[in-house]
Amino acid sequence: MNLKEMAIEAKKATVKIRKASTEQKNRALFEIKMNLQKNKKAILDANVLDRNAAKERGLDPSLLERLSLESKLDGILLELDQVIALPDPIQEIFDEKLLPNGLKLSKRRVPIGVIGVIYESRPNVTIDISALCIKSGNVAILRGGSETLHTNKILVPLIQQSLLSAGLPEASIQLIANSDRSEIKELLKLHQYIDLIIPRGSSVLQQFCLENSQIPVITGGVGICHLFVDETAHVDQSLKVILNAKTQRPTVCNALDTLLIHESIAKTFLPQVVHLLKEKGCFFKLDDKALSLVADPSSSLAKTEDWDTEWLNLTLSIKIVPSLQEAIEHIQIHSTGHSDGILTENISHAETFLNEVDSAAVYVNASTRFTDGGQFGLGAEVAISTQKIHARGPMALRELTSYKWIVLGNYHTRS
Amino acid sequence: MNLKEMAIEAKKATVKIRKASTEQKNRALFEIKMNLQKNKKAILDANVLDRNAAKERGLDPSLLERLSLESKLDGILLELDQVIALPDPIQEIFDEKLLPNGLKLSKRRVPIGVIGVIYESRPNVTIDISALCIKSGNVAILRGGSETLHTNKILVPLIQQSLLSAGLPEASIQLIANSDRSEIKELLKLHQYIDLIIPRGSSVLQQFCLENSQIPVITGGVGICHLFVDETAHVDQSLKVILNAKTQRPTVCNALDTLLIHESIAKTFLPQVVHLLKEKGCFFKLDDKALSLVADPSSSLAKTEDWDTEWLNLTLSIKIVPSLQEAIEHIQIHSTGHSDGILTENISHAETFLNEVDSAAVYVNASTRFTDGGQFGLGAEVAISTQKIHARGPMALRELTSYKWIVLGNYHTRS
Repeated sequence: MNLKEMAIEAKKATVKIRKASTEQKNRALFEIKMNLQKNKKAILDANVLDRNAAKERGLDPSLLERLSLESKLDGILLELDQVIALPDPIQEIFDEKLLPNGLKLSKRRVPIGVIGVIYESRPNVTIDISALCIKSGNVAILRGGSETLHTNKILVPLIQQSLLSAGLPEASIQLIANSDRSEIKELLKLHQYIDLIIPRGSSVLQQFCLENSQIPVITGGVGICHLFVDETAHVDQSLKVILNAKTQRPTVCNALDTLLIHESIAKTFLPQVVHLLKEKGCFFKLDDKALSLVADPSSSLAKTEDWDTEWLNLTLSIKIVPSLQEAIEHIQIHSTGHSDGILTENISHAETFLNEVDSAAVYVNASTRFTDGGQFGLGAEVAISTQKIHARGPMALRELTSYKWIVLGNYHTRS
Repeated sequence: MNLKEMAIEAKKATVKIRKASTEQKNRALFEIKMNLQKNKKAILDANVLDRNAAKERGLDPSLLERLSLESKLDGILLELDQVIALPDPIQEIFDEKLLPNGLKLSKRRVPIGVIGVIYESRPNVTIDISALCIKSGNVAILRGGSETLHTNKILVPLIQQSLLSAGLPEASIQLIANSDRSEIKELLKLHQYIDLIIPRGSSVLQQFCLENSQIPVITGGVGICHLFVDETAHVDQSLKVILNAKTQRPTVCNALDTLLIHESIAKTFLPQVVHLLKEKGCFFKLDDKALSLVADPSSSLAKTEDWDTEWLNLTLSIKIVPSLQEAIEHIQIHSTGHSDGILTENISHAETFLNEVDSAAVYVNASTRFTDGGQFGLGAEVAISTQKIHARGPMALRELTSYKWIVLGNYHTRS
């Protein structure tokens, strides 16, 4: 099948899956879980093929980590259970009102339709997105990276088999098995059949989609994340949060990239943070004030572009700022609008930060690592949007829906 | 100023207007109302200049009607009062929840930022959009058609003066006074400064924006609207609704384009509807079954493309269908997803229609003319979206917002 034929099949599948009962959609998800468990060895073997090929091609270690299913499969099965347990968003009725003229107005939640997802590396995305699309009555066309092809080629047929067992069209989830940039370009023009494009990956991929798509695009997933340590912050607790935000999983978008420290506490706080993170293998890019406080081979002077870099590794940029206001200004300029936080004991500093920092997720006294559909109680996520249209932050079931207005009258006419 | 300079000014203005109090934003709206009243004569004179020029250039009568402010100015003033009376959507807190780990999660409603609006003819759109953008804390760059330039050139300075009186940046509303297609193309690339593009106008304009924009685009406003007269419909009441949907204001997107009639009542119903609408000057494009029932010079055989035509005049396509299911299938193929309705006394026919017709507004026993921000109680509208992303149907204050996630912790770390 060529891309257009796939898109036509996808469009056809929407008619059936958008009307499917909650029970039927949950049955498909349960079947997927069973099939993944039954085929665990084959899946991990296929994943090893992908990882070996990637190693040979000298893929970046952060991408290699994203590629691996080894330690993630149990988590994926758990997420499937969570998605099954979540309420079905479809047919929800909301914003009901009776107009003065007697018209009854309400909104009914409906699936979006066909979602095209273009992603790199992570094969767990294949399952996450399939589960969320099925539960929300949507159809997905998946285009994973060539580096995950072995893994995806075993996962998607298992998903399709599960759909069929539940009486749903197998074309509800389709995989573009092999494609180059020119084919992605073709996909991005099929607005007659595809309702939404979600690119998950580098900013280069996102920009490519923005420039070439005639279909609405959700951009996101690029996180230059900041924490600001206010002069009132609890020192030991803040160190714990920074350690978590930077090192718990440095290869992902919600990991900490830049630490801002209030100058009145920098002299004591900075050496502690460097000492603690160095033990975990971190490197530091410091502004000149910070560098003057730390004499350490793990540290070097930050270049201008370092403040606009998403590290995805154990590097951390650190800057000393004279005030809350300058911390906020730095974030307004350099943040990608993903996740930014303040560590503080002062309630009005917290409120000022929450008001003025306009990112998808704004934190007070917590690790930026929480920006995640699973952590936010959404079951999983199809993407983390950093734009302001449609949905912002982790996108899961409700964010995969639209609505229609229902208007009930008694032969009403407009005067 | 060139376009980029305007966009930079717009972006700067967001910082101030997004923090403005409700009282301050309402003051600006009240000042606009006062200034419009005070300058009514000058505005209508400018509008006459535009209309005379348009007449000379032989503009389509439906566009001429859209261009006129003559009978609309009082309605606009009323709408300003309605927008003032509406609650301020900004800073609304919603979806609050306490996670099992103690993190407090909520969403806070925020403005989108800078909205670029490209529209044709209607100068009332200038006021509607300005009012809604100001109230929702957004900034707008307006590009009206060249045929409304005299009118817009008097309206926008009055708006800017009102903004200044209320202590808000005048760059909150800016007009692109003169531009050609290549400049619109340039505007559509300024994604660094502009967050959303709303094209209001022909499908050609919408397609142009879709093809050339790197900024999210809300498409809509093209309405091929249907009413299906079920065999159980109340005849006299249905005639009244059809008359209203077709003739109350035929030049707008929510006016009726195609009437579908159940074959079991066609023989009696069709002659009545033709008789009634002919008196209002309607013409009819009939399928062959319908044509065999009506011998009248006002009627001719519908061509294939007529079922895909938004008339914007007194033409009505009429088709006889053998069943509810075929009516729904016709609508699924030919509707633009704007407004479609059923006239019926049968509750399960109504429910089937509501479930299967996936348009922005789906009606039971009411005129399609109600699809309108003002009629739906939203005060006014910036557009009627016929896509499924972000918002669908009439878009007003809430639809001009996004949200941010607020996460409050007690030095929480992710495990």
